[in-house]
Amino acid sequence: MNTEEDPENKRKHIVMLGAGFAGLEFCKAMKDVPVRVTLIDRQNYHLFQPLLYQVATAGLAAPEIARAVRAIFTEYPNVTTLMDEVTSVDLRSREVHCKEHTLTYDYLVIGLGVKTGYFGHDEWAKDAPGLKTLDDAMAIRRNVLLAFERAEMCEDPEEKRRLMNIVVVGGGPTGVEMAGSFAELSRRVLKKDFRRTDTAEAHIYLVEAAPRLLGMFDEKLSEYTRRHLEKMGVTVKLNSPVKRVEDDVVEFGDETVRAANVIWAAGIKAPELTSKLGVETDRAGRIKVNQDLSIPGHPEVFVAGDIAACIDAKGRNVPGLCPAAMQMGRHAAKVIANEVEREILLQPQPKEREAFSYFDKGSMATIGRSAAVASSMGLKFTGFIAWLMWLFVHLMFLVGFRNKLAVLLQWFYAYIHYQRGARIITGLEKIEKLPVKL
Amino acid sequence: MNTEEDPENKRKHIVMLGAGFAGLEFCKAMKDVPVRVTLIDRQNYHLFQPLLYQVATAGLAAPEIARAVRAIFTEYPNVTTLMDEVTSVDLRSREVHCKEHTLTYDYLVIGLGVKTGYFGHDEWAKDAPGLKTLDDAMAIRRNVLLAFERAEMCEDPEEKRRLMNIVVVGGGPTGVEMAGSFAELSRRVLKKDFRRTDTAEAHIYLVEAAPRLLGMFDEKLSEYTRRHLEKMGVTVKLNSPVKRVEDDVVEFGDETVRAANVIWAAGIKAPELTSKLGVETDRAGRIKVNQDLSIPGHPEVFVAGDIAACIDAKGRNVPGLCPAAMQMGRHAAKVIANEVEREILLQPQPKEREAFSYFDKGSMATIGRSAAVASSMGLKFTGFIAWLMWLFVHLMFLVGFRNKLAVLLQWFYAYIHYQRGARIITGLEKIEKLPVKL
Repeated sequence: MNTEEDPENKRKHIVMLGAGFAGLEFCKAMKDVPVRVTLIDRQNYHLFQPLLYQVATAGLAAPEIARAVRAIFTEYPNVTTLMDEVTSVDLRSREVHCKEHTLTYDYLVIGLGVKTGYFGHDEWAKDAPGLKTLDDAMAIRRNVLLAFERAEMCEDPEEKRRLMNIVVVGGGPTGVEMAGSFAELSRRVLKKDFRRTDTAEAHIYLVEAAPRLLGMFDEKLSEYTRRHLEKMGVTVKLNSPVKRVEDDVVEFGDETVRAANVIWAAGIKAPELTSKLGVETDRAGRIKVNQDLSIPGHPEVFVAGDIAACIDAKGRNVPGLCPAAMQMGRHAAKVIANEVEREILLQPQPKEREAFSYFDKGSMATIGRSAAVASSMGLKFTGFIAWLMWLFVHLMFLVGFRNKLAVLLQWFYAYIHYQRGARIITGLEKIEKLPVKL
Repeated sequence: MNTEEDPENKRKHIVMLGAGFAGLEFCKAMKDVPVRVTLIDRQNYHLFQPLLYQVATAGLAAPEIARAVRAIFTEYPNVTTLMDEVTSVDLRSREVHCKEHTLTYDYLVIGLGVKTGYFGHDEWAKDAPGLKTLDDAMAIRRNVLLAFERAEMCEDPEEKRRLMNIVVVGGGPTGVEMAGSFAELSRRVLKKDFRRTDTAEAHIYLVEAAPRLLGMFDEKLSEYTRRHLEKMGVTVKLNSPVKRVEDDVVEFGDETVRAANVIWAAGIKAPELTSKLGVETDRAGRIKVNQDLSIPGHPEVFVAGDIAACIDAKGRNVPGLCPAAMQMGRHAAKVIANEVEREILLQPQPKEREAFSYFDKGSMATIGRSAAVASSMGLKFTGFIAWLMWLFVHLMFLVGFRNKLAVLLQWFYAYIHYQRGARIITGLEKIEKLPVKL
C-alpha cells in the first residue's frame, strides 16, 4: 500500500471515504484529472438506498439495488477501490487509519453517510432496528415474514395479533414507503396464501412525533399521504413521540402496543468518527462545513453527502437526499480538480473557492401501488402521475443497466399480480437464537 | 392445528415432508383429490437447487432461484403450508413431531432431501462447507469475494496466493459447475477491476477421488469436461481422494494446498431423522423403499426424492436428480390418489400397487460460458449445443414466470459483458469473528 512513496508516482493522492452517492459522483468527476484516487468503503458495493425499503418488504432482491464498487470503476484507471473500515482520521498528519491500513492524503473527502439515530436512546436499537444497510433490510424482511409464519401456527388470538403488529416509527419518506409497502404485503400479497390466518387483520402503525407526515412537503401532500395510507389500512398516529421501546413493547402518545416488529425510520446520527476529528459538529454529529464544503481550517478536507451539515451559497440548509449528496460530490471534485490543474500549469490559485449551491429538483415519496406524492419547482403532484414520476426517476438513477431492467421487470410483474419476488426467509441458520419477540 | 379432529372434516390427512422437487410435484398432483395435504418445510421457500452454484459464484441473486412455498400453492385450497422443522416421526402412532407442532397422518410422504456428506469426517464440515441451502451459497459467495478483497490489500505473495486459492472437492456436476464458474469469475469478471492483484493468477483446484470427472456420463464427455476446464484455467486433480481438511489446509493425493476457500461437493448424507425411524437405510442413511416407494411394512408411508434409496421396476438404482425426485413425487401421489378415490367409491383396492419406473431423460452439466455436456437417449452432446440445451432445460423448469425472465436477462447480460450481477458481500455484520482463514 506504499504506492504514495513510489518515486514514479508524483500525482496528488486523494482519499475518498465512502462509496455512497457522494463518493461515486466524486470519483466519476475525477476521471480525467491527473491524480490518484483511493475510494474506501467497508462494503464492497454501492447501495441504491432509496429502494432499500423494497428489499425490507420483499419486493426486490438485495443484488438488484447494489453493485460492486470495483465494477463501477473498471474504466477509471486512476481510481483504486479498497474495502476497509475507517477507524480514525488524523487531520494534522493527514492520515486515514483503517482497520487494515494507514493511508496519507493530499486531499481528503469524507462521504461516509449517516446511521440510524435514536435521539439519545441507543438502547432502543436492538428492539427497533433501523434501515440503513442491506443486512438491515434482509433482517427486517426475515423477521416480518417469519412473524406471519408464526402467526399462521398460533392458536392464541392475542399472541397472533402481536405477531402481526408492525410499528414503523417515523413519518418521513422511508417510514411512509415502508408502512405502505407492509400494508400491501399483508392485505394483498400474503392474504391469498395463508389458510388459518387473515393476514389483512395485521395492524400496521405509522407513528410520527410531528403533527403531519412528510414534513418537508407541502401540507396538502402530507394530508393526501395520510388519507391514502389510511385507505390502504395503515393506522397513522400523528403527534405521537415514542416514549419507550422495550422488547416488543412500544409506547407512543397515550398508547402502548405490543408488536413482533418495530422498525425505526425516525432519526439519523453521524458515525462516531466525526466526534473524534476535533472539528465542529451539529447535534446529530454531522460535520459543519464552509460554503465550499471544506472543513474550517482544513482546506484540503471536504465533506459531502448526509454527513455534512451544510448551509449553501443561498443560505439554505442542504437536505440529506441523494441529489444533494451527488451535487456535493461533484462540487468537491470540481474544486480539487481546478486546484490540481492550476498547480500543474503553474497558474495562481483563485483567491476564493466557488461556494456550493444546491439545485433543488424537488422531492418525492411513494405511498403504494400507483400512488405517490411529488413536488418540484413549485408544482405539486399526487396519485398515479406522481407514481409514474417516482418510477421514472428511480429507474433513471439506478446504477447499471442490468439492475434497471431486472427491477422494472419485477415491478411490472408485482404490479400486475400483487406478487413479491423476494418473499424468502434467509439467514435462519446464522441465528443462534431467534429474537425474543418471535 | 387440531383440524384433524374437526368432525366437519372427514377427508384423509396427508403429510408431505419437504418442499423440494418431490414435495412440489406431489402436492400439485393432489390438486383435485379429496384429501387434506399439509406440506411441511423448515424454510418458507422452494429452492431451485440446480442453479444454487450460480448464487455461490455471484451470478444470480438468492430470490431468483427461490420462491415462497405459499405463493406456489395459492390456488390449491387443499394444500396447507407449515413452516416448521420435523424432529421425529413415529411410524407406529402415525405422528409427525415438529419443533412447534405434532400432526397425525393417514398417509405420509417423506421428501426431505439430503445434506452434504463427509464420508465419516464431519469435522471437515466447518472448514469445507457444502452447498445445499441458500445460506450455504451466500456464505460461499461472501467468503470467496472477501478473499479476493483481502488479496488486493495483501503485500505478502505467499499469503496472497493462499487467499486466491479455491479448492472444490468433488468432480460431479456441482463441482464441475462451481470450478468452471470460479475460473470465469477470477479470469474474466474480476480481472479488470483489481488494480494491485492479477486475479487470473488465482488457482482453482477441482479434486476428485475417481479416475474421471462426471462419473455418470460417458467417458468421452468426462474427458471433454476435463480438457475444457483445464483450458479455462482449472487445475483438475483426478485419483486424488481428500485425506485431510484442517483450517485452510487440504491434503489430497500427494499434495497439500493452503486455500482460503475449500468447498465440498463430494458426498451426500440423509438427515438424522432417517436413522431414528427404525427402518432399513443404506450407507448414506437413505431409506430403502419398496418398488411402489413405500417403506417395507408401512404401506401408508412413502419416500420420494434424494432421501429414497430406490431400485425401480426395471431394477435400476434411481439417481439423486431433480427429474427423478419429481417423478417419484408424482408416483406417490398417483398411488395415494387411487387408493383414496377407490375407498370413497367403495371399490376394492388393487392387489398390488404400481411399481415406480424411472424415465431417464438424460443428464447434463454446464462447464462454463457456452460449454456443457449432455447425454440423452444414447446421444451425446458437447460445447455450445449442449450449453443451449442446458439453458433451455433449466429455464423451462425454473418455478415462476418472473424468475425465468429475470434469470434469462441476467444470463444474457453476463454472457455479453462478462459481468456478475450478485457480486455483493452481505452478512458481514452478523459475523462476530471472520473465519480464521480470511
